[in-house]
Amino acid sequence: MKDQEITQVIRSWEGQNKAITDIFTKYDDDYYFNEVAPGRNRAIYLLGHLVAMNDLMLPMLDLGEQLYPELENIFITQPDRAVGEIPSIGTLKEYWTKLNEVLAGHFGALSGAAWLGRHTRVSEEDFQKETLRNKLNVLIGRIGHMNYHRGQLIFLTPKA
Amino acid sequence: MKDQEITQVIRSWEGQNKAITDIFTKYDDDYYFNEVAPGRNRAIYLLGHLVAMNDLMLPMLDLGEQLYPELENIFITQPDRAVGEIPSIGTLKEYWTKLNEVLAGHFGALSGAAWLGRHTRVSEEDFQKETLRNKLNVLIGRIGHMNYHRGQLIFLTPKA
Repeated sequence: MKDQEITQVIRSWEGQNKAITDIFTKYDDDYYFNEVAPGRNRAIYLLGHLVAMNDLMLPMLDLGEQLYPELENIFITQPDRAVGEIPSIGTLKEYWTKLNEVLAGHFGALSGAAWLGRHTRVSEEDFQKETLRNKLNVLIGRIGHMNYHRGQLIFLTPKA
Repeated sequence: MKDQEITQVIRSWEGQNKAITDIFTKYDDDYYFNEVAPGRNRAIYLLGHLVAMNDLMLPMLDLGEQLYPELENIFITQPDRAVGEIPSIGTLKEYWTKLNEVLAGHFGALSGAAWLGRHTRVSEEDFQKETLRNKLNVLIGRIGHMNYHRGQLIFLTPKA
């Protein structure tokens, strides 16, 4: 059992996943090598970045290991173009789909008490002082992060 | 009384307000006449758009009338540059601050039951079928909207 509010946040997460998926199924693979704005990240980097950041929810929410730990260096630690060999758009899209399925399974199974419990990056001691630093907060943050980069990815749309 | 989850969503909203405020207190007023990317919206338009969209929460959440109804045509209905005379950055920043104060006051006072009640754009009949179309959902959507445009506004930052 969990409060309805948690279900609403999970719905919001699902909505963002779908919106990002829509962007990355709209054009040919080559198109995602475009920068979202001159001198800014390429779309392919942002997809890798979103996979890598959402993948980190698995350990942060105590749900297991990252599925694709090799992405962390390429798409979080390093900026775009710093690493020469990166996975293809096709591979990243597969990872994105698979990760969303795995996370959705966990999210459906997590109890309300678990969502309101501490995430693994905050100590038991700090959590006593700041009880909002819970698993739900991690999810709220990741939804915001997806929205943030979606606002950039929308610039791939050719100008009217 | 309200569930802790609602408090967390309100905190997330406050965090976005602060992050947007930080962007609009960083540069001289003139700087916000820059487009966030070539051919895209100017920053001043996005600030007006954020005020106008958040202002609509007042009627949607049944908290009263919009404070600045005149912004709706300029910054929602019409695209950037369609209206010749628009409020100054200074005025829009005042509106932004005032609106956030008014909304924060209401948000603190709203009960948990009110947050989970229908918003004014959904009929009683439709709400019975889709009970997640509540006031909290409006707030979650607006937080996402702020993040989305913040991802664009960050492109004002000069390139390294």
